[in-house]
This record gives sequence, structure tokens and C-alpha cells, in this order.
Amino acid sequence: MTLREHEGVTYAQGFRAAAAHCGIRKKALDVALIVSDRPAMAAGMFTRNRCCAAPVIVSRRHVARGTIRGILVNSGNANAATGAAGVRAAETCLKEAAQRLHCRPAELLVASTGIIGVPLPVEKIVGALDGLAAGLSASNGARAAEAIMTTDTFAKQRACSVALRGGTVRIGGIAKGAGMIMPNMATMLAFITCDGRIGRTRWQRMLRHAVNASFNCITIDGDTSTNDCVLALANGASGVAVEKEEEDKVYAALEALCMELAHLIVRDGEGATKFVTITVEGCARTRDADAIARTVANSPLVKTALTGCNPNWGRVIAAAGRAGVAFDPERMDVYFNGVLTVKNGCGAGASKAVLDELFKQKEITIRVVLREGHARATVWTTDLSHEYVAINVAYS
Amino acid sequence: MTLREHEGVTYAQGFRAAAAHCGIRKKALDVALIVSDRPAMAAGMFTRNRCCAAPVIVSRRHVARGTIRGILVNSGNANAATGAAGVRAAETCLKEAAQRLHCRPAELLVASTGIIGVPLPVEKIVGALDGLAAGLSASNGARAAEAIMTTDTFAKQRACSVALRGGTVRIGGIAKGAGMIMPNMATMLAFITCDGRIGRTRWQRMLRHAVNASFNCITIDGDTSTNDCVLALANGASGVAVEKEEEDKVYAALEALCMELAHLIVRDGEGATKFVTITVEGCARTRDADAIARTVANSPLVKTALTGCNPNWGRVIAAAGRAGVAFDPERMDVYFNGVLTVKNGCGAGASKAVLDELFKQKEITIRVVLREGHARATVWTTDLSHEYVAINVAYS
Repeated sequence: MTLREHEGVTYAQGFRAAAAHCGIRKKALDVALIVSDRPAMAAGMFTRNRCCAAPVIVSRRHVARGTIRGILVNSGNANAATGAAGVRAAETCLKEAAQRLHCRPAELLVASTGIIGVPLPVEKIVGALDGLAAGLSASNGARAAEAIMTTDTFAKQRACSVALRGGTVRIGGIAKGAGMIMPNMATMLAFITCDGRIGRTRWQRMLRHAVNASFNCITIDGDTSTNDCVLALANGASGVAVEKEEEDKVYAALEALCMELAHLIVRDGEGATKFVTITVEGCARTRDADAIARTVANSPLVKTALTGCNPNWGRVIAAAGRAGVAFDPERMDVYFNGVLTVKNGCGAGASKAVLDELFKQKEITIRVVLREGHARATVWTTDLSHEYVAINVAYS
Repeated sequence: MTLREHEGVTYAQGFRAAAAHCGIRKKALDVALIVSDRPAMAAGMFTRNRCCAAPVIVSRRHVARGTIRGILVNSGNANAATGAAGVRAAETCLKEAAQRLHCRPAELLVASTGIIGVPLPVEKIVGALDGLAAGLSASNGARAAEAIMTTDTFAKQRACSVALRGGTVRIGGIAKGAGMIMPNMATMLAFITCDGRIGRTRWQRMLRHAVNASFNCITIDGDTSTNDCVLALANGASGVAVEKEEEDKVYAALEALCMELAHLIVRDGEGATKFVTITVEGCARTRDADAIARTVANSPLVKTALTGCNPNWGRVIAAAGRAGVAFDPERMDVYFNGVLTVKNGCGAGASKAVLDELFKQKEITIRVVLREGHARATVWTTDLSHEYVAINVAYS
């Protein structure tokens, strides 16, 4: 699967985008519209945080209801912990956008990222809508990717095409990751567009599987946002139907796209100096493997050891041991970048020189092998650096 | 309950201690003996980490078996991830110590803290035993407290007395907290002595309750050690029986002692700049309240906000929302040091000036109030500072 680096959410036919600076953030682009020229099947995956934000409440409702024409997204304000007024604010923005796009408000989705607990500046967003509607263009995908950034250090977009019997289907997407421009929290957003013709149930199922295999397997700091969401639109503009027997091809492309965007988020994680892959194998159940992988990934001691290029494998086994999973530590092996470091729960005698060199690498794969069964899981994460603390201590 | 700051593990009658530098650590005291002059009822609470250390395996077995005469403890080496050889090493140390104390090896407990995955230097410990046995004294409690330190910045001891009808019972204890002298992990150890006469089952039950209310409610970084243990000896040297109807008095003293030692560990947490109390009330079940309190306590974003004296309450509600507990966010209130900051899930309008001032304080109490039931839980923690990362990134 070849992913195009310079294409994103407007690569699929029939999608246009626009972005603007409406004044929520000091200087940067902070609002974007992504629009399909015809009704699209929508799928969505939303944060499991109980304290979910107003745009999540509204978009979840609209995704469930019918076809969708577009997505309105802002950065700089999360519209979270804003109660009923926050939901009304999101609805007002959609109502105003719908007038300009000649559709119903329920045909639009909304997403926000930024500071929690501050009322959404509706007038700023509404004030930008005329310009956004007038500026919609298939060449604005990169600007939309930029408008959803907060402390991301680079914009994230990818796209690809899939050859089906009936013709070519294009898929593209943009994402933002962990960052904050104001006292705030990490929020993960992604928007995906596809010009294949596909029913909503199948599209939602494909998105669910792809998100579970990608975005739901990354962690920067274990803090699930109130605003996380992945929204995907399939508008059929290619004229190509995604038939049941070819669905796997489109799914493979969708998963590869989600995986790459998810990995880009990890690479751009706050203060990240390492890209870390943690695979746990040989578990009785997938959820056991997942629990161990996540516990290792979120362990501050494992993360700081990685920052220090410190081959302190004891922290990895200690984290695995506290994951709440029953296993025999005397039948646990651990490999770092393929080097057997722990054998049957004890040091395997790898030389300090080899491990020291290995831990200086920018990409570290930690493979934990148990002997309890055949289930496995992989999680991607970063380290915990001085820079992470500096970013999150700062208040401006 | 008045706790004595200058007494510890030798305050209770019939207990003596000795400490020495045997060469595991570069300069500091690194081995200690705590001995009862008669057989004592032993109770123990041990790490739940699946990858528990050799001394945990040995001490758990000895506690279950019969009366105990003493505890041998070293710092600088955890004797963890050392397999069957590690268990044999711990047993060798106990056998050698037992010869010098004229008791059976099974009458001794053992504890270790320090680097994981390095063989225990048995010869260094055994070489110190003659001196330790000869130096046992009731005035060495403070030295024992010092010998179990790793990167603790101060030694931790407390003691108290309880007046019962039959006379006075004394209880004392020492503890070490989160720190590391070498690439390593935080380990929590505490040793408690009591001169009351009490049966083993009741003593174990009292210790379990006291530990669950104190040591098990603190967290520095969420990383449970392979070596955590609390060992408690009651030797009856006071001649005073702890009768059933007076057990509550002794329990209150034991819990107060454990609580104070636990709080000392938090105050000395790696890089700590704040002492933080998190109370969650109004939950359907105690385990719900506990899950929310721990999730808030371990959230890197909440912790860094505290380091930055940043009244970013959005991070607290976001952490509460991801704790895996079902609750209605629109019926959640949050108080910081008594100031109502979040009302029904939204900002309560507390002035920025008030919150800014409040967050500069060294002691912060976060009180989360839900409306789901009557269960509650409290957890104590620290913030996440540059210093924490600096300590744990370092490799020497």
C-alpha cells in the first residue's frame, strides 16, 4: 500500500475544503470546513471519556441519523465541560454553516479541540463561515490539516487509491495529535474521506475495525481526551461501488491510512524523542495482551528509561507484572529490537555494550513473549522527556 | 494520636536493630537487622506485582509458617528477576543470619530494594552479619531507617504508645519510599514493631486493614514495585495482652502510624513539589471512587498542571471521565482546597485570581463529588516535575 504524503482529505473525488483564521487562536488557522458535493455515508468513532465534549454529543447524534454533507472543525477551544450551552453553541454553528451550504444542520458534523471549560466563541466561527463557504476547493486539503493542529509540530495527511473491478476508489485523511496551545489537554482528531459507494453499516464497521487497529492502539500519556473523534465520509463520487467481495481491499487501504496517521501522531507526541512499538504475545486473551502492552506503554519509569537510552529492562517486567493479568513470570521472554534480553524472567546475558547501543536508536520495539496462549496485541507510544513536562507545566 | 518523630522500629520493648555499610551501595548504610528478643507474631502485606522479587517469595512463605525473630533488609539490590538463584541467595543470607541469632532460618524475614535483574551480592551481606549481630541495640532504630533509604531524601520513622487496661503497648515503624540509586524502580518498604501480645490472625487482619487504608492509597507514578512489602512483628514484650475489646485502640494507633509513614513517602516522592490529597465522594461503589481517585492521581496532565500551579480543572474532569466508571458528568462537582470550581460538570465561576493563588499552595486537596451513591475513597499523591524526569532518566 503506497500512501501519498502530499494529499489528504480532498484527494477523494467530490470533496472540497477550506480553512481560515477566525481569532480563537492568536495567529494560526483555527477553523476548517470539509464538504462533500453530494450526501455521503458517515461513520464515526468517538471518545469513551464519560465527560465527552458538546461536539462529540452532536456529531454522534448526526452520524447515527442519515447522510452527511460536511464537517465543521475548530481548534483552540474544545467546547468541553460547557453543558447544555455548549451543545447549543455547536448547534448554532452548524445551523449557520448549513444555511451557507444549502443543507440541513443535521447533515453536518462538528469537531473541536483546544481549551476545556471555556465557552465556544460562536460569533468568531460564524463570522468566518462566509469566507469558508466561498473558499471551498479541492486544493485546500493541506490547509485543513493545518487548521486542526494545536501544538502538533507538523500537519498530518495521507491518501491512497484502491483499484477495484469497477474502477479506482480514493481514500484520504488528516489527523491531529497530542498538543496544547493553552492550558488544555491532548486531543486526537481525524477526518477521512472516500469516494467509493458503500452502505452506512458496512462503512461504520470498516471504520470501527480500522480505528481499533490503529488510533485506539496509540498512547502518548494515557490521558483520553474529552474530544477524541474519527469521522469518515464515503460519498460515492467515483461512481465505483464497493462490493462485498472487494470490501477487503478498501478495508486494507483504510486501515493502512489510519495506521499511518496514528503513527504520525505518535511521532509528533509531546516531547517525543523515540517511536516505540510494544508487542505482547502468547497471552490467554487479547485483552490480557492489550492490558500488558498498555501498562508498559504508559509506565513513567519505562518511558523515562527510554528517554535516557537506558536499557533498564527491569522496569518493563515490573510494569508487565502490575498489569492485572495472571501469568507465569518464569516463562516470560523480552526482546528489545530483536535482541533477547530477558529469558524465563531473568536477564538473558545480553552484553551491556549491545544494549547501550540499541537503546540509543530512535525506534525501539519491545516484544514481550509469554507462554499462556496465542493472543497478542501491539501498542505504539513515545517516551517521557523533559520536554513533555515543560510543555504541560506551562500555562499561558 | 501523638506520633513521636525521633523513635521508630526499636521503640517497642524487646526490639533491637543494627545497620552497616556492606558495599552494595557506594557509601551509604545498605544492610540492617531488626531483631525481637523473643518469638513474635508476624504479619505481612506484599506487592501484587506478578513479577515479585525473591525476598517477597521467601518472606511470604515465612510469615505464613510461624513466629518470627527478625528481619534482614538490604538496599542497593532488589534481588528481583533473579529466578531460582535469587531465592537461593535470599535463603543463604537468612541461613547465615540465623546461625548468628541462634534461631532457625524460617524464623527470619528478608526484604530488598534496589536494582532489578542483578544477582544479590550474598558475600557482601554475609560479611556484614557478624558486625550486625554484635551491634544490635535498642538505640539503632534511626540507623535502620537510614539503611533502607535509596534516593529518599530523609529517613522515615515514627512511633507511638497506646494505653490499655493492662498497661502500655508501644508501636513503631520505619519506611522507605520512591527513589533509586541505580537504574531501578521505586520500591516501598515498611517495617513495624509492636510489643503487645496478640494472636497472628488478628495481627495480620489489623495490618491488612491499616495497609489498605494507608500505604495502598498512595501513588507517586502508578508503578507498583516488584519488592513492595510491609512487615509487622508483635512480640508481647510489654507483657500486655491486646484483648479483643481493646483491639480498636491498637488498630487506631497502627493505622495512624501507617498513614503517617505513607504520607512521609509521598512528601519525599521523586521530584515532588506538592502534597496532593484526592477524595472522590458520592459513588455507587467504593471501587468506583477508588478508580476515579487513582486515575486523577496518576494522570500526567493533572500532575504537570499541579507542578505548573496551573488551575486547569478540565484535566481533572477529563481524567475522572476516563476512569472506566459510569457516572453522570452533569452531576459532578469539583472543589480545590474547598473552593467550588466545577458545578454540575461546568465551570462554577471561581475567579482566576482565587484559583491562581490557591494552586500556588504546597498542599492541594481535590474533592470530586458525584451523585451516584454514598461510597468514597481518598488517595494521596505528588505532582510530576522536571526533577522526577531528571531522576528517572539518569543512568549511572
